[in-house]
Amino acid sequence: MTELKNDRLLRALLRQPVDATPVWVMRQAGRYLPEYRVIRERAGSFMDLCRNPELACEVTLQPVDRFGMDAAILFSDILTVPDAMGLGLYFTEGEGPRFQHPIRTEAAVRALGIPDPEQELGYVMQAVRTIRRELDGRVPLIGFSGSPWTLATYMVEGGSAKFFANTKAMMFERPDLMHHMLDILAQAVSAYLSAQIASGAQAVMIFDTWGGMLTTSDYREFSLRYMQRIVACLPREHEGRRVPVVLFTKGGAQWLEDIAASGCDGVGLDWTIDLDQARARIGSQVALQGNMDPCVLYASPRRIRTEVATILARYGSGEGHVFNLGHGVHPGIDPENVAALVEAVHELSPAYHR
Amino acid sequence: MTELKNDRLLRALLRQPVDATPVWVMRQAGRYLPEYRVIRERAGSFMDLCRNPELACEVTLQPVDRFGMDAAILFSDILTVPDAMGLGLYFTEGEGPRFQHPIRTEAAVRALGIPDPEQELGYVMQAVRTIRRELDGRVPLIGFSGSPWTLATYMVEGGSAKFFANTKAMMFERPDLMHHMLDILAQAVSAYLSAQIASGAQAVMIFDTWGGMLTTSDYREFSLRYMQRIVACLPREHEGRRVPVVLFTKGGAQWLEDIAASGCDGVGLDWTIDLDQARARIGSQVALQGNMDPCVLYASPRRIRTEVATILARYGSGEGHVFNLGHGVHPGIDPENVAALVEAVHELSPAYHR
Repeated sequence: MTELKNDRLLRALLRQPVDATPVWVMRQAGRYLPEYRVIRERAGSFMDLCRNPELACEVTLQPVDRFGMDAAILFSDILTVPDAMGLGLYFTEGEGPRFQHPIRTEAAVRALGIPDPEQELGYVMQAVRTIRRELDGRVPLIGFSGSPWTLATYMVEGGSAKFFANTKAMMFERPDLMHHMLDILAQAVSAYLSAQIASGAQAVMIFDTWGGMLTTSDYREFSLRYMQRIVACLPREHEGRRVPVVLFTKGGAQWLEDIAASGCDGVGLDWTIDLDQARARIGSQVALQGNMDPCVLYASPRRIRTEVATILARYGSGEGHVFNLGHGVHPGIDPENVAALVEAVHELSPAYHR
Repeated sequence: MTELKNDRLLRALLRQPVDATPVWVMRQAGRYLPEYRVIRERAGSFMDLCRNPELACEVTLQPVDRFGMDAAILFSDILTVPDAMGLGLYFTEGEGPRFQHPIRTEAAVRALGIPDPEQELGYVMQAVRTIRRELDGRVPLIGFSGSPWTLATYMVEGGSAKFFANTKAMMFERPDLMHHMLDILAQAVSAYLSAQIASGAQAVMIFDTWGGMLTTSDYREFSLRYMQRIVACLPREHEGRRVPVVLFTKGGAQWLEDIAASGCDGVGLDWTIDLDQARARIGSQVALQGNMDPCVLYASPRRIRTEVATILARYGSGEGHVFNLGHGVHPGIDPENVAALVEAVHELSPAYHR
């Protein structure tokens, strides 16, 4: 294997010293980039692009090439696992992900099987291998999946939902059935992320987009418990290096102590919590990834630089911080503003690492 | 004035002993009630209904009559103040509130004036007086408004928004201008709620629907600060009784200590925090209103009763709890399930008040 030239991300996630704070942004490969839109056009649908390892590799590398990001993240979707279970994932303009076959009956839940990552999800593993080859050790590659709870919401609702009425009705009325589904999903996600690691992902992240819609007790029982189980199942070393695991629950600022106690290496933070508070609460246990409000990218490069400075100062000196947004970059953002963000992190952060 | 026969709500909000936990639910008068839909049909548009004091009174009383709620809440909208400022509030099916004249320029911000509650908002004051007359002392009447920050988001975006791109761009680039707008709004909301109290509202609530989309620092600076100013300006006694003020920030569980220190009497809680934790954090300073997940109403009456029991047990014995949902009741809910909720609170709560 080629030696990793820039390992800031992996070091920061393990709370080891670095020369500068590593930076990448969620959805860094995507619609706001003109070069992405060209490839997307060529590929066909969003899922056609995900399923094409060469093109998925090309868009994965675009933000690394353009901005000098300190990590690449696999171009894919959080919902590939239920798609591989036969639910038929597709995307509609403006409405986001949808499933052709939502899970609405006990029989449908009982029929769910665990996909073989090298078969039904072979296109993802091929993309991981292709990206690793093309990255050639420049920066590490992050793999990912949706969390079991988040996958379950989409599977039951058939797509995005305002209130999660069907999912929660199942959770409240048939907790046994919901737990069965989450158990299957935890096994499937564990196998999926393990295969990504075996294929070359050097860090993995679990996106719990909708855990924040739960009560504290329900979050622990129906979301965190299953992420914790996945963390416990993953191989934590590959190619002679530790493979860090990051958990990100949007709207989870209340539960940081619980998340940090899950066994993960890093915790992703949305923008609602200030980084000094988060560090005071869990910074001695885990690395923190985040957490600029993505809407700051609607402001000017100058204002973005001020905000980067504020966030770096809030985290303060020492190891354990990966700079990121608190949520994915919005589609309409000017790429120049993302460039301003990355530049500011690289210029201003070394002062905190002496 | 007629004597108040059921003053549980007012007593609970002042943390005084009661015989049973008072219960009402946000949006208790609304689309899920068939008797509401009849009146709504007769009135015309949603705003026609708000502007018709007799019909607004009728729908306000419907849930009190049907369920035996311990409080009535004025039938109105959180956005009446910007409407009275000339922005032209209207509602579109499925897309929620919109403004004909959003605020997009500095000149538009500078032109904003403070409406006279007895003139531009006279229909609200007339509704309050009519409802008080028709309630005839059965239960107290709650008045309300949106928070300055929440009003500002709708005013700048022109309606609901996914990311609040325009509002946040203004906040980040022109904080001076945003503060000017929020200052005007705080004055307008203070005048509006003061007039509601003078007209007969016996408690008031400020809905901060979108404060939870801010960072901790921005929440304090752009949302909480202005609610605090309103709290400081309101007359706190009327008709010989204290008029409690409740602040509700959706997604604000992180900031309960800050909210409780605002000078309010009660804090509204969404469902994401468990009530025992909230009480441990701020229960010695303020009353707590909440906080059942509104999605529990999609489950069976039996399951609803179990959840009510759990929430009452979480709060535990003693004063200071107003039972409510953590957010408004959803449109498709079966009224029988709301009946089950109210019945369970009235049957199970006296054990906690001996």
